[in-house]
Amino acid sequence: MQPRIVEVRKDILKKNDELARALRDRFRAFGLFAVSLVSSPGAGKTTLLERTLADFRDRSRVAALVGDLQTDNDARRLAAAGVPVRQITTGTVCHLDAEMVNAALADWDLSTLDVLFIENVGNLVCPASYDLGEALRIVLMSVTEGEDKPLKYPTIFNSSDLAVITKIDLADVVGFDRAAARQAIEQVRPGLETIEVSARSGAGFSDWIARLQAEQRARSADYLRAGP
Amino acid sequence: MQPRIVEVRKDILKKNDELARALRDRFRAFGLFAVSLVSSPGAGKTTLLERTLADFRDRSRVAALVGDLQTDNDARRLAAAGVPVRQITTGTVCHLDAEMVNAALADWDLSTLDVLFIENVGNLVCPASYDLGEALRIVLMSVTEGEDKPLKYPTIFNSSDLAVITKIDLADVVGFDRAAARQAIEQVRPGLETIEVSARSGAGFSDWIARLQAEQRARSADYLRAGP
Repeated sequence: MQPRIVEVRKDILKKNDELARALRDRFRAFGLFAVSLVSSPGAGKTTLLERTLADFRDRSRVAALVGDLQTDNDARRLAAAGVPVRQITTGTVCHLDAEMVNAALADWDLSTLDVLFIENVGNLVCPASYDLGEALRIVLMSVTEGEDKPLKYPTIFNSSDLAVITKIDLADVVGFDRAAARQAIEQVRPGLETIEVSARSGAGFSDWIARLQAEQRARSADYLRAGP
Repeated sequence: MQPRIVEVRKDILKKNDELARALRDRFRAFGLFAVSLVSSPGAGKTTLLERTLADFRDRSRVAALVGDLQTDNDARRLAAAGVPVRQITTGTVCHLDAEMVNAALADWDLSTLDVLFIENVGNLVCPASYDLGEALRIVLMSVTEGEDKPLKYPTIFNSSDLAVITKIDLADVVGFDRAAARQAIEQVRPGLETIEVSARSGAGFSDWIARLQAEQRARSADYLRAGP
């Protein structure tokens, strides 16, 4: 039984990788900076994204895709930022895949966008294996979750380009051990840049925005160099 | 592709259900009360279990199985309660299944135990479909995760026998809306009993223990009535 599952999974992942590569090429061709956010349920992806969209919309043409098993709660929350938002409802599937992203974008004119945020289903395990064509994958962990999460979910930290520690305004009240958390990240992914933010208090928020903008600029320069 | 996956999954789930039924029969034959805990990463399963084991060990012969992708951090934490603890490391598998539980119990004499706690991998999605033979499945959600989690992960709430809202000591500081959370639970699973607890402050802890003991007594009576 087990080998058969593995084989089917490999097949699925290979197809996903191919489609993700095609998506990445399209994003690049349109000069579109695609960023995905992944975390456990309730780590604060949507709250951070609400505030981030509101900040980005004055400078960039920004949009968001949001994945959830059920409900369009997150899409409704994000739409309040006044930018295009689309919900992907996955049913029982515990992660987004490239095909879902592709389908959700089918009738969007990508030339009208500069930045696309993709919020994955809340899950630290399954999204790790699915490339979505994003230029930047960001893993979030909140101070309330415990400092050892990177050690327990190494694959998602290994496959991410940036780690964000959220709800930093609660660090003291929950007794968050910053050194232990950073050490855990460093242990599974040496050198992974880590920033701290609170979408509620605003602490670290300008650093977060600056970091995203720097990435966006770097990618744009890459895209221009690479040509059409 | 899609139908093939579904078929393989159905096959896996059927095998799991059969093995779970056999496990449940064994637990019942030994008068062993098996309880599983499921939640997102960092909702506080291990912290609640640490304190619960310490409380139970004076009255009952209690043991624990703990699932994680990587690390035996949780098993080491729980072992401090001075009860038998075994870690199940799942690698990349995002949930426990009945076979893993069965294998982990292979050389344990179940007649020496009254209560077995099974802590699942931190994941609100995938564990929902896998029966572990437990008598009671408990879903935890922390006040820091957001009140709409039951609406977003309905299957796990639907397949659970009890909901526990954890970290209730943080309710005020995170602005937790108790009525909204209870309404969300009620919406996906009308009548699901919900209790609130803080393993840190001890708030609600005696209710939690009393609830478990009542369940344990009810099951014991059932087992006696059913005979060997």
